[in-house]
Amino acid sequence: MKHNFNAGPSILPKEVFEEASKAILDFNNTGLSILEFGHRTPTFEAVVEEAMSLVKELMQLDVNKEVLFLHGGASTQFFQIPMNFLNKEKKAAYLDCGVWGTKAIKEAKQFGPVEVVASSKDKNYSYIPKGYQIPSDVAYFHYTTNNTIEGTQMHGIPDTDVPLIADMSSDVLSTVMDFNKFSFIYAGAQKNIGAAGVNLVIIDKDFLKHANTGLPSMMDYSQHIANGSMLNTPPVFAIYVCLLTLRWLKKIGGVSAIQQINEEKGRLLYSTLEKYPIFTLPVPAEDRSLMNAVFTMSDPQLEEMFLTLCKQEGMVGVKGHRSVGGFRVSMYNAMPLESVKVLTDLITDFADKHA
Amino acid sequence: MKHNFNAGPSILPKEVFEEASKAILDFNNTGLSILEFGHRTPTFEAVVEEAMSLVKELMQLDVNKEVLFLHGGASTQFFQIPMNFLNKEKKAAYLDCGVWGTKAIKEAKQFGPVEVVASSKDKNYSYIPKGYQIPSDVAYFHYTTNNTIEGTQMHGIPDTDVPLIADMSSDVLSTVMDFNKFSFIYAGAQKNIGAAGVNLVIIDKDFLKHANTGLPSMMDYSQHIANGSMLNTPPVFAIYVCLLTLRWLKKIGGVSAIQQINEEKGRLLYSTLEKYPIFTLPVPAEDRSLMNAVFTMSDPQLEEMFLTLCKQEGMVGVKGHRSVGGFRVSMYNAMPLESVKVLTDLITDFADKHA
Repeated sequence: MKHNFNAGPSILPKEVFEEASKAILDFNNTGLSILEFGHRTPTFEAVVEEAMSLVKELMQLDVNKEVLFLHGGASTQFFQIPMNFLNKEKKAAYLDCGVWGTKAIKEAKQFGPVEVVASSKDKNYSYIPKGYQIPSDVAYFHYTTNNTIEGTQMHGIPDTDVPLIADMSSDVLSTVMDFNKFSFIYAGAQKNIGAAGVNLVIIDKDFLKHANTGLPSMMDYSQHIANGSMLNTPPVFAIYVCLLTLRWLKKIGGVSAIQQINEEKGRLLYSTLEKYPIFTLPVPAEDRSLMNAVFTMSDPQLEEMFLTLCKQEGMVGVKGHRSVGGFRVSMYNAMPLESVKVLTDLITDFADKHA
Repeated sequence: MKHNFNAGPSILPKEVFEEASKAILDFNNTGLSILEFGHRTPTFEAVVEEAMSLVKELMQLDVNKEVLFLHGGASTQFFQIPMNFLNKEKKAAYLDCGVWGTKAIKEAKQFGPVEVVASSKDKNYSYIPKGYQIPSDVAYFHYTTNNTIEGTQMHGIPDTDVPLIADMSSDVLSTVMDFNKFSFIYAGAQKNIGAAGVNLVIIDKDFLKHANTGLPSMMDYSQHIANGSMLNTPPVFAIYVCLLTLRWLKKIGGVSAIQQINEEKGRLLYSTLEKYPIFTLPVPAEDRSLMNAVFTMSDPQLEEMFLTLCKQEGMVGVKGHRSVGGFRVSMYNAMPLESVKVLTDLITDFADKHA
């Protein structure tokens, strides 16, 4: 039995693996593999349609929102967004609260002026900046809702009249939010939505009116919308895995149901770690992520021992990112509470022995 | 029993489906699905490494060539190439010999001057232009080796000193060629290489020295090379399917072996069609594609009847593209000779009945 705490690509529901595996041999009883299936067929068009409408339903999106499944990952959106919405005269505001946000800022600067409204770089991005001002004269304000590497998460939506753009790659669909407050949401699929190689993009139609024109076709959101995410051959299988995962989420009760489970997992893990002084939690309680928990030990030898025990218990992906060290435990939607319990039991045993 | 003549996504070897299906439940006996597997792991890095080195081996590439697996399809390359290699002063020459080439030209014009050296638009792209001059002062000459929609294929490589760029999406790895004559080759995977959602890109290192700088990271080939196709989370599963297909191709004897089979399939189909005047072959013999055969009938009612019979025999994807009409039969590498025989038997029966 494996417990997959990978940061991404990461755990998906077991039934998604089973159905995806079956579809590679025989998709929808067609006698054909999903891998050899034409994308411009009613059967596959229905896959894209259903996936789009499940996103709308699960996120309770209003009629003004368009849902797209695009090639690439969030890194593609890092430049595609400013390419669409910035120029020499149109500036953007960015929050710098982690490795991914920093990358997004770097790409945006090639297309227009960028004002970094706040940064938590001073403490290795271990907290979410607060109390900053978002200028009113910007084309948009961009932030990362959850920082996979640093284990921080913004709880709540910034209060501003400026169009909001959020990279939700690592926490989309994990917590109930008023998603309609955003002008643009994007998320690489490989954490909470599906397999690597596809991006979920949600665009407000009014915001889209401000997009630059004369862009390469594949960079032009309007063309993707006009073609129903099939401007060219889409990542067929990756979209199908999204559909299976979205169906699973709906079946178990949607975002509010998964939020409860995610909160329970987070409570269990963080409260266990807080009990034992041999563990350090670098992120203050109010900024801790329910998706990626980061913790360290002061003794490198103990860290090594703990990692070995994790491996013996079948745990995968527990080692922290090289930029933070220690441990990182990702508990995306598909991670069962049982796996977190196996981990917290190990933490308890270990702490008792090495107190 | 299905016979899949889809133009793309299209048939892949049966053993590829079987292994891919297995890897979704348990990848390499790791107890994890390939869909939840970390891309920055030795196990997956070995997948990318092996896929790259199989491409080099099967195409007999020299040491100056870099192999990449990038997000997106050929349509992404349509703009990424001119973004890298054109500007107001650097012009390109393009051959306009089909729908895809026309799209590539449209995207290139946004980045620099484009000279269309020849076009077969006058006859609905039903032939490959010949006898054109490629100017010597261009950054590159771009053409499509095989035209999926129109059923034409360029047999041979244009003789020029100008850097050659080829879109080989629909015939890469199907015929022995001196691939080292090209400065840049690209191919959406979903025909001869693997699953939709990944691009094979081959770049000559000397040619790459002419690339523009200051590009978005994801558009910068040098950054992808420096990161071994893992600048961001790659389309993990799509790359794995490429590996399986490349392994299969090597096992059956490589490109020269598949070329013999492809020629046999083409000979069988075209010679059968030529026997019966109720079928029309719009493409002259010297330009016919071994990958996509296009044919029509003068009587729309007969066309409808023939299509119905094809369906009854389990044939998929035989209907022609709306821009050409009639029938299109794709016979990519993985298409067995037996399936073509089933089709030619049907053609013979049908023609005998309706002569």
